[in-house]
Amino acid sequence: MYSPLLAHIARYIALTPEEATLFTSYLKTQSIARKDFLLREGQVCPASYFVLQGCLRTYFVSEKGTEQIIQFSIENWWVTDYASMSQHTPTPYTVQAIEPTEVVVFDHEVQEEVFRCVPKLERYFRLILQRAVAAAQFRNKFLFGMSGEERYHHFITAQPGFVQRVPQYMLASYLGFTPEFLSKVRAKVNHS
Amino acid sequence: MYSPLLAHIARYIALTPEEATLFTSYLKTQSIARKDFLLREGQVCPASYFVLQGCLRTYFVSEKGTEQIIQFSIENWWVTDYASMSQHTPTPYTVQAIEPTEVVVFDHEVQEEVFRCVPKLERYFRLILQRAVAAAQFRNKFLFGMSGEERYHHFITAQPGFVQRVPQYMLASYLGFTPEFLSKVRAKVNHS
Repeated sequence: MYSPLLAHIARYIALTPEEATLFTSYLKTQSIARKDFLLREGQVCPASYFVLQGCLRTYFVSEKGTEQIIQFSIENWWVTDYASMSQHTPTPYTVQAIEPTEVVVFDHEVQEEVFRCVPKLERYFRLILQRAVAAAQFRNKFLFGMSGEERYHHFITAQPGFVQRVPQYMLASYLGFTPEFLSKVRAKVNHS
Repeated sequence: MYSPLLAHIARYIALTPEEATLFTSYLKTQSIARKDFLLREGQVCPASYFVLQGCLRTYFVSEKGTEQIIQFSIENWWVTDYASMSQHTPTPYTVQAIEPTEVVVFDHEVQEEVFRCVPKLERYFRLILQRAVAAAQFRNKFLFGMSGEERYHHFITAQPGFVQRVPQYMLASYLGFTPEFLSKVRAKVNHS
C-alpha cells in the first residue's frame, strides 16, 4: 500500500526495514472521489498528503471570484499548506480531486514523533522541500518572465502528462490566462 | 561573527557548543558593497547565503527587458537558487546588494559533509525550507488574489521595515506594478 512512497523515499535516503515499518505505522490512506475535496478553504490543514494515484488541483478564489489554480499534484507529489498546518491557521486554499485519487496521509500531530523516532526522515523532507522551493522560484519566473505562448510550450514540454489529464479551463487558470487564449495558442500549435 | 546565525538556529534546534564550532568551521563570510552582485544570471549558484547585515534583492530580466524582483532578503534570511545550486545549472537570477551587505557563505561543496557531521542541521534546514515554501505559496496568492492597492497595504503592514530600506521603483517591481501606480497608491494612503 505504501510502496510507492517508500520507493520515493529510497531515491533520497536508505531506511532500514524496521524504520520503514515504524514510519508507515503512523500513516493512513484516504480516497477522494472525483470532484470531492481533500481540503477546503477555511479549514486548518491537518496533514501532508502524498499522491499514490490520481490528480489534485490546489486553488484559491480571487477577489474577482475566479478560481486561481496554483498547483496540480499527481503520483509521487506531496501536497499541503505548510503555513496553515504548522501555525494552525485557516487555509485560503482548496484541494480538489480531478480524478479518483488515493493519498497517503501524514498527520501533522504525529509528525514530530515520527521525526524523533526516525531522524533520517528529516533529510528526506529537507530534500523534498528544497525541490518545492526550486519549483516555486521557477513558477515565479515562469509567470512573470514568459509570454503566454511560451508558458504553454514550456508546460507541455516539461509536463506532457498533465495536458491529457487536466481539463483545458483548469490548465488555462494554472497558466494564468483565459480559456479563449489557450484555445488560440493550441490552434496555432496544431496548425504549425 | 556567526552569532546571529547561531541564534537563528537556536530558535529551531539545540546544537552543542562542539557542534556549533564544527559547523561554523565550514563557513565563511563575504561582504558585498552597495550595488555589487552576490550572484549573476548565468553563473552556477555556488552556495546558500545567510544575511548578517544589509539587504539584497533577487531579480530576473523578463522577456521585455525589465527587471522583475522576486525577493528581498534582510537580516536572518537565507537566499540561494536551490535549482541552480543542486543541479549545477546556470541561474536565471541576479542577487544584488541594495545596502552594504555581509553574508555567511555555506558552500554547496561542503554541505553534504556538514550534514553528515552534524545531522541535526537537517532539521533546521527542513524547518527553514518549510517556511520558504509557505512564503512562496503566500506570494502566489498575494500576486494573483489581491488588487494592487491591497498588495501595497498588506506589504507595508507585514513588512514595515522594507518600505524605508528599499527604493520605490524596486518596491513597485516586487509588488508587480509600475512606479507610477505605486506613487498613486502612496499618495492616497498619505491623504487618508
